[in-house]
Amino acid sequence: MIDEMEKVNEEKETGRLEAFSDGVFAIAITLLVLELKVPDVATAAHSPAALARALLQQWPSYVGLVTSFFTVLIMWVHHHAILRNVCRTDAWLHFANGCLLLGVTFVPYPTSILARYLQTPAAKTAAAFYAGTFVLIAICFYLFIRAAFRKPLLSARASMEFVAKTCHEYMFGPPLYLAATLAALLDVRLSLGICTALWIFWATTITKSTRA
Amino acid sequence: MIDEMEKVNEEKETGRLEAFSDGVFAIAITLLVLELKVPDVATAAHSPAALARALLQQWPSYVGLVTSFFTVLIMWVHHHAILRNVCRTDAWLHFANGCLLLGVTFVPYPTSILARYLQTPAAKTAAAFYAGTFVLIAICFYLFIRAAFRKPLLSARASMEFVAKTCHEYMFGPPLYLAATLAALLDVRLSLGICTALWIFWATTITKSTRA
Amino acid sequence: MIDEMEKVNEEKETGRLEAFSDGVFAIAITLLVLELKVPDVATAAHSPAALARALLQQWPSYVGLVTSFFTVLIMWVHHHAILRNVCRTDAWLHFANGCLLLGVTFVPYPTSILARYLQTPAAKTAAAFYAGTFVLIAICFYLFIRAAFRKPLLSARASMEFVAKTCHEYMFGPPLYLAATLAALLDVRLSLGICTALWIFWATTITKSTRA
Amino acid sequence: MIDEMEKVNEEKETGRLEAFSDGVFAIAITLLVLELKVPDVATAAHSPAALARALLQQWPSYVGLVTSFFTVLIMWVHHHAILRNVCRTDAWLHFANGCLLLGVTFVPYPTSILARYLQTPAAKTAAAFYAGTFVLIAICFYLFIRAAFRKPLLSARASMEFVAKTCHEYMFGPPLYLAATLAALLDVRLSLGICTALWIFWATTITKSTRA
Repeated sequence: MIDEMEKVNEEKETGRLEAFSDGVFAIAITLLVLELKVPDVATAAHSPAALARALLQQWPSYVGLVTSFFTVLIMWVHHHAILRNVCRTDAWLHFANGCLLLGVTFVPYPTSILARYLQTPAAKTAAAFYAGTFVLIAICFYLFIRAAFRKPLLSARASMEFVAKTCHEYMFGPPLYLAATLAALLDVRLSLGICTALWIFWATTITKSTRA
Repeated sequence: MIDEMEKVNEEKETGRLEAFSDGVFAIAITLLVLELKVPDVATAAHSPAALARALLQQWPSYVGLVTSFFTVLIMWVHHHAILRNVCRTDAWLHFANGCLLLGVTFVPYPTSILARYLQTPAAKTAAAFYAGTFVLIAICFYLFIRAAFRKPLLSARASMEFVAKTCHEYMFGPPLYLAATLAALLDVRLSLGICTALWIFWATTITKSTRA
Repeated sequence: MIDEMEKVNEEKETGRLEAFSDGVFAIAITLLVLELKVPDVATAAHSPAALARALLQQWPSYVGLVTSFFTVLIMWVHHHAILRNVCRTDAWLHFANGCLLLGVTFVPYPTSILARYLQTPAAKTAAAFYAGTFVLIAICFYLFIRAAFRKPLLSARASMEFVAKTCHEYMFGPPLYLAATLAALLDVRLSLGICTALWIFWATTITKSTRA
Repeated sequence: MIDEMEKVNEEKETGRLEAFSDGVFAIAITLLVLELKVPDVATAAHSPAALARALLQQWPSYVGLVTSFFTVLIMWVHHHAILRNVCRTDAWLHFANGCLLLGVTFVPYPTSILARYLQTPAAKTAAAFYAGTFVLIAICFYLFIRAAFRKPLLSARASMEFVAKTCHEYMFGPPLYLAATLAALLDVRLSLGICTALWIFWATTITKSTRA
């Protein structure tokens, strides 16, 4: 009984940090749709076919929207899984979480750069800028788990196996995204392929953790 | 007593999923107003009547705002009613919920396409694009209830009657919206009529469920 | 003890309605700042004085921001005070709450219309549009308390005095805002004066309720 | 046991105030990214190098984004720390909190003014406008703690040491930001230096409080 009560108490401290982070994730993910602009078909060409063509020509924006949406979503699921093991907050966790959230709110910007310049000769720079953003976010994620997984903050119910596995896996994030950034200078598709492969990997990782 | 405690415990796991989803729904529904642009009446015609005319001419935007607002609201009420029967989350529920939220955040875009082109010859394409979006959302909703209504995730308090009724009703969503999409190519009003009829149906469905 | 538990249980049902509404209020109130546009001072006139003049010339936008901010804030405090007396939800409360939230999300639009046309001959139309919006919102607020203050939804802790007082006061909302709307056709300052007086009245009302 | 229950009860009253404030902070912090515009490189110059140059030239916007992000984040951490000592709300706290939130939602505007005019002769006005905003916010923060730290609202668990220390420290906010505002008329870097030094000070203050 008293144990139950302590659990209720334990959760309290990270409550507002989670609520605030959830808010930032939710807003960042919803703002992505603002990147889609209503196409301006010339009045002379107001035919159904012209509008259909204009909507189809925006495919890089749709791809960008879907990619960034699942990117932010997977980051949110990871954030969620990490904080389930934490019951106290301190200034360092707030700061590390802040850096991570800055990265999350920034995602729509490189995505729209990529959508805008994917079919131009400047695509290499756009892809490098996109992958480079994730180098920074991967570093922030690593700082975040380091701040979150300290003894005094860990919940009594924390899975030490999850903690060890996460610390190990997140170490590979920054160098792999750096490779994707450098790859952009050679070939845009190679760079975006590495990014996509990594997101599938992060999604699989968390699926297994949640199942176990 | 212990039973009460377990209920409190049960709710916990879907808490952040609901908070995040509520955030996304709330933001998507509020961003709709950003589609309304302050009309630019020429300085020479700064008469009260000219501004009144300009405000009235925006009626398709107002209709679009109100329609999309209640569309997203009804989806939120359904989402709310579904998750009341669920107490645990896993990766598949997160993924299905994510697809659904992607659809929700997308709604403002086809709505503004429709508002922009409703009074032009391109209205058929705009209406097909609008109804087509709901084909995808209806599929996502079906995946979502399939993921949510699995045994291990269901709450002990889940109403099996609600679960069975919802699984049955949601099966009709995708084919009916597909009919609305095809109808748009024949007649715009027929397509929008089917969409409106369906929303009234969904609203009625949930009203009865909540009452029972 | 069991009584305490019941209270915790009671709150649960309106929890997501409140969370969703809080989200909509919070977003509507924050979107107001998007109406402020960075003034474009001509490069030739990039003097400190020219920028200061440009920033000062935006005063109607600042007044609009502050007014709408406190308008939405007072509506939120009222919403908060009303729902403290309610512990269950049903489809009608969701619907009435939805209509009210639609009104709340709409506020930024008439505010920016007013800010844009306050110093032009079209000010009368802008003020009538602004006051007219609040006629609709006052009607929605009245529907909302009628839906919320039904027996089956009221909390066991509801203050019947507050309920009766609120039902009485809210009846005056629609006719008074209608007067403000008609007054706009005679004199813009009279209309805005009635609106301001009413907001001070609503703020005072709730202050007394909260104190008591 | 009963004591534990009372704590749970105590938290309830500030719950929605915190949820609403968290929402406003989260949205204000996320809207900052909307200030970043996709650079429009001329089609003729669609080279990787031209896009890289265009992205680099936006450095004042990046600096503005990062500065404002951490500014709002530190304000949120302070808001969080203050309300942990409070368990009841009344109309004055709602009003003081409202003024503070108005200041928070306003931050993106002076930041984008500063980013836009930092490299022009009008920088002095932009810096004074930026620092001047924080004079108002510092006054709002002082009113907020005065409203929050009244006997009837304080939690039984409130740290009187934290209360006294905060009341003392926050008194210095308005005059120091006023100095930064006046300094802007002499030298832009001096003004921004004072602002930065103060944010580091506020961050350090709260770090110590949270640790203790």
